[in-house]
Amino acid sequence: MANIVVNGVGTVGKRVAHAVRKQDDMNLIGIADVSPSPVLRTVLEEDAPLYGTPLYASVPEKIEELENEGFYVEGNLPEFLDMGEVDVVVDCTPSGVDEKNKGMYQEKDVKAVFQGGASASIAPVSFNALANYDEATGKDFVRVVSCNTTSLSRTLWSLDSSFGIEKAIGNLVRRGGDPVQDSRGPINSIVPVTEIPSHHGPDVQEVMPGLDITTLAVKVPTTLSHLHMVNVDLSKEVSREDVLKIFKKTPRVKLLRAEEGYSSTAKVIEKFRDKRLRYDMPEVVVWEETVETEGKRLYWIHQVHQESIVVPENIDAIRSMLGMSKRSESIEKTDKNLGIR
Amino acid sequence: MANIVVNGVGTVGKRVAHAVRKQDDMNLIGIADVSPSPVLRTVLEEDAPLYGTPLYASVPEKIEELENEGFYVEGNLPEFLDMGEVDVVVDCTPSGVDEKNKGMYQEKDVKAVFQGGASASIAPVSFNALANYDEATGKDFVRVVSCNTTSLSRTLWSLDSSFGIEKAIGNLVRRGGDPVQDSRGPINSIVPVTEIPSHHGPDVQEVMPGLDITTLAVKVPTTLSHLHMVNVDLSKEVSREDVLKIFKKTPRVKLLRAEEGYSSTAKVIEKFRDKRLRYDMPEVVVWEETVETEGKRLYWIHQVHQESIVVPENIDAIRSMLGMSKRSESIEKTDKNLGIR
Amino acid sequence: MANIVVNGVGTVGKRVAHAVRKQDDMNLIGIADVSPSPVLRTVLEEDAPLYGTPLYASVPEKIEELENEGFYVEGNLPEFLDMGEVDVVVDCTPSGVDEKNKGMYQEKDVKAVFQGGASASIAPVSFNALANYDEATGKDFVRVVSCNTTSLSRTLWSLDSSFGIEKAIGNLVRRGGDPVQDSRGPINSIVPVTEIPSHHGPDVQEVMPGLDITTLAVKVPTTLSHLHMVNVDLSKEVSREDVLKIFKKTPRVKLLRAEEGYSSTAKVIEKFRDKRLRYDMPEVVVWEETVETEGKRLYWIHQVHQESIVVPENIDAIRSMLGMSKRSESIEKTDKNLGIR
Amino acid sequence: MANIVVNGVGTVGKRVAHAVRKQDDMNLIGIADVSPSPVLRTVLEEDAPLYGTPLYASVPEKIEELENEGFYVEGNLPEFLDMGEVDVVVDCTPSGVDEKNKGMYQEKDVKAVFQGGASASIAPVSFNALANYDEATGKDFVRVVSCNTTSLSRTLWSLDSSFGIEKAIGNLVRRGGDPVQDSRGPINSIVPVTEIPSHHGPDVQEVMPGLDITTLAVKVPTTLSHLHMVNVDLSKEVSREDVLKIFKKTPRVKLLRAEEGYSSTAKVIEKFRDKRLRYDMPEVVVWEETVETEGKRLYWIHQVHQESIVVPENIDAIRSMLGMSKRSESIEKTDKNLGIR
Repeated sequence: MANIVVNGVGTVGKRVAHAVRKQDDMNLIGIADVSPSPVLRTVLEEDAPLYGTPLYASVPEKIEELENEGFYVEGNLPEFLDMGEVDVVVDCTPSGVDEKNKGMYQEKDVKAVFQGGASASIAPVSFNALANYDEATGKDFVRVVSCNTTSLSRTLWSLDSSFGIEKAIGNLVRRGGDPVQDSRGPINSIVPVTEIPSHHGPDVQEVMPGLDITTLAVKVPTTLSHLHMVNVDLSKEVSREDVLKIFKKTPRVKLLRAEEGYSSTAKVIEKFRDKRLRYDMPEVVVWEETVETEGKRLYWIHQVHQESIVVPENIDAIRSMLGMSKRSESIEKTDKNLGIR
Repeated sequence: MANIVVNGVGTVGKRVAHAVRKQDDMNLIGIADVSPSPVLRTVLEEDAPLYGTPLYASVPEKIEELENEGFYVEGNLPEFLDMGEVDVVVDCTPSGVDEKNKGMYQEKDVKAVFQGGASASIAPVSFNALANYDEATGKDFVRVVSCNTTSLSRTLWSLDSSFGIEKAIGNLVRRGGDPVQDSRGPINSIVPVTEIPSHHGPDVQEVMPGLDITTLAVKVPTTLSHLHMVNVDLSKEVSREDVLKIFKKTPRVKLLRAEEGYSSTAKVIEKFRDKRLRYDMPEVVVWEETVETEGKRLYWIHQVHQESIVVPENIDAIRSMLGMSKRSESIEKTDKNLGIR
Repeated sequence: MANIVVNGVGTVGKRVAHAVRKQDDMNLIGIADVSPSPVLRTVLEEDAPLYGTPLYASVPEKIEELENEGFYVEGNLPEFLDMGEVDVVVDCTPSGVDEKNKGMYQEKDVKAVFQGGASASIAPVSFNALANYDEATGKDFVRVVSCNTTSLSRTLWSLDSSFGIEKAIGNLVRRGGDPVQDSRGPINSIVPVTEIPSHHGPDVQEVMPGLDITTLAVKVPTTLSHLHMVNVDLSKEVSREDVLKIFKKTPRVKLLRAEEGYSSTAKVIEKFRDKRLRYDMPEVVVWEETVETEGKRLYWIHQVHQESIVVPENIDAIRSMLGMSKRSESIEKTDKNLGIR
Repeated sequence: MANIVVNGVGTVGKRVAHAVRKQDDMNLIGIADVSPSPVLRTVLEEDAPLYGTPLYASVPEKIEELENEGFYVEGNLPEFLDMGEVDVVVDCTPSGVDEKNKGMYQEKDVKAVFQGGASASIAPVSFNALANYDEATGKDFVRVVSCNTTSLSRTLWSLDSSFGIEKAIGNLVRRGGDPVQDSRGPINSIVPVTEIPSHHGPDVQEVMPGLDITTLAVKVPTTLSHLHMVNVDLSKEVSREDVLKIFKKTPRVKLLRAEEGYSSTAKVIEKFRDKRLRYDMPEVVVWEETVETEGKRLYWIHQVHQESIVVPENIDAIRSMLGMSKRSESIEKTDKNLGIR
């Protein structure tokens, strides 16, 4: 059993912590944060997923603030790490804070998983379970790439393995903010990333170094998910049926048909509202009708649930780092425990 | 045990069916619909709340369409009703269809609960559990009032019982559509109801006949919930603490503090994403800081989750119609089974 | 002829400057700003409203930055004010900056108009042309109240003068940001002001000191305009026709009928897109159908174009301060020059 | 002088009529419509662009309805066409109605321009001024292609003429509706066109028959404009400077720099709010920073003002059909008269 702590209980942190709790080969032995946020308050309530998890202050000087707001605090994270019980810290703190925390993890000699908001240099491996699971094995630090990059890594790795990819171009339509980030816009505007490539292409290359990929991105007034319009030049001519076959057997890629009513990001999300807390959807959803080929060129459109897509990758990263399972075993176990089919 | 069928599996129907399943004194013995909608498909899947519920075609001629889309159909609703097993049909079909169905229910001599989209004349009682539970007892037809009316009935009935109300004015900021209704606007506009009062005031009077109430309403570009700004002239001078005390003990009214981070409709909803499927929130959430008095005048702002607020009222309506429980027992039982505290 | 400078060329400043240019008793002898913003760039282009207006740096140390970006800068504002040609500076700088500028205006002995973002203490008079034009006469500093306050002052002053007001309650539905403020949210949320009254009520009382008014406010995802749902207890019983008659003859209040197609904020704005640059709409638009009475109680809903409603008030404030015209003359002249009928 | 009538005074019709009025070689001798819409009411008011234009009922049986609403109606369009004064009707009626009108125009022997909402078969030429001006010369019927197609035709024709195009892929992010279409969604969703190619690619091929182009499209919650992310394989390697040079000299293509503050669709539109009624922007705006090359591959992002981009093309179509001017003369004249530089 691996002993895990999640540091930073926000959008990703609360989900990873919940996911760790659902694994039968991991213990969530603590969560840590710095302030009495509404997230922290909520997830520790009696009817919520993290009820009963020991809470630590990420830094000693924050204990008092948490206690003043009525939280029971076990202690502070640095001292807890000194006790030698923690195998991996999953760091979900804001970008910038994670860099500072890395020093502490090194000092305490504890392994850590970082998130895609950090720069690639924070860890020797930028991780995607499908694409480079084995590279994380034995590493002290691993960075799970961000939501958009994860979706591209899954789909492109799968196609590249099967057919070879000459060139990939991703056109990203990003959500303005998560539902809870209601101070963020845009309200009635589309905001292009005017640097081409956007940072997503190079980030995919951290996971798949040889891949020729360029990404463009815009931001739109929606909170539910990102959407990608992708076109890829494959190394050989394939039919759309060939591609559908590959996508169907790729873990964490799900085909849905618009004609069955799943015809927009909201309508896809609605499906998961009836199934999973927080309508979490770690699968990349590809609209089946949009998979289309022209000779060696392939097109499709997919949807990315920015809040949850990286959750299974965090779990797999832990197993790889600790040498707990082989790739396919880990992916299968994670998915079964999270209800991903 | 009461045997219940839900006719019409949409936004409200799927939730009522799920809620019936959670009661220990009711059986959900069937659901009925007319077409292979994505909702129907989803909720019957193996990992979804209504998995295993017998499905009927609401009308005989729709069996084939459902079967062609792969659904297993037990039969049609009219024939099923003939078998005499059904105690109450909860009709959640679209407005207009419910009127037609009423004839069938009369013919089959089965009791039915209708929803607030129907005109008040569809049933002798327009129902709210707090305000007029007993009036539904023994009735064949009951109409559960709609989401906005339910929220006003709960809060105003409670205040009227405690302090007396001279005049109530509700200013409603309505969501443009539910998340899944993505063909509905407005996108960047505010649409006023130019008839004053809007229909909500008279609808509250169906539940509380003597109440002097006027409502104004506008529609805005959001999908998560409605919001009401209310001002009330009470019969006597009270303090805000008096009012908070009353709201705290009113079932299905919940006080939340913006200063704890629940400072918008999205941030309140986020709390329930971590707790309940579909982030259902049948409670009226009153922002505690907004409860303010000026002599006999009282102000507050509350939030209404349009998709789920009427769910517990449907359950209570069933119990009242069948004489299964007293008001306070039914409310308590319903709330316990739905996780409402 | 009054010589006017506008300091701060943003949303309000550019409009006031343009409006000054349209008056036959005023000269716009300069505009001033601190940085090469897109607004400044645009309005000085050859086909734009402020083409040819001398540009000053608001502070000496900003000349270089402006010049480096290709602007021709006449000099700096403090030195320009020393030359004694400026009668009034209309200060449209951001809140906080205006307070600092006030010291300079005092030192240079030049009159100034401030905007409603400043606290009321910045000037001895919080100004609305209808309500207290004469109070500004001869004053060195005047503050034109903000957009929502202006709309309430116009409508309430007019009713109070005609019928007397016992109590006014405004329920404000505010836009999240102006069209150009696309980093502001909320995207899919409604954000209540949890302090009651919101600051708008007390701000109206700066203009109409004896008025009993309470305001509530929420923010919604739209950029075009604010909307108010108002209920007022009058001193006597009146008919809706009485009220319509008063509104019809109140300057800068315009009645529109939803049934003629002006049924939302977007549809009202569309009317002005065909008539005025920037679809400026300094009029408060009251939906005629929403004017409704119940004995002494009056209801209505009105729309406020946040970007332009204060423009005519700024012009009138100048005339009053300099003793150039009587109230009715100034209002009439301003409106004629701005195309307001 | 060409005598022009515009039939159908909606979003496009009112703009084309206004544009005709601004030409020195055309007379707007009438507009026609079927109902007293708010658009019609507005544009004929004294301070509006079409004040004084003779109004006809598009069909005889609609005269009465218009007159009852206070419009002065000159007569009906079919009879007016019989008088032989009209050279060209610009038909801006809804899709479907235009097909029916075509029969009348044939019968009356009058030339007509149709809009892109009609199917390509309505006219022998699908028109774009740059790409195929001469093909319309002498034709009785011409169809001006729709907004997105126009933007692609301008940019792609210009590149194809200069460098040759092997393959073009357009990824379209479409607005949900125009500002005034506030019953249209989506509110918080992204809706993909699940057919690939979307209809835009084949429509560009109506204008540029040999071009290899594929388009993908999604719809987002915004009203201001469409946005395209384009990638093109050119026939030869070029630098971004080469491309910028071409775009700079292409009529109706405008380069703007995000770093000067024009960093979103709203911020670009804001520029035109200060310059033109209705913030009309018939130019395709390309963000200069997004023009990027990789060998023979070219990327860019552009913005399309859906309401006005086809206006100059309608004017040019008239001139070409009547043989009034050569292509370059017509484009230059149109642009000068509309303030396009």
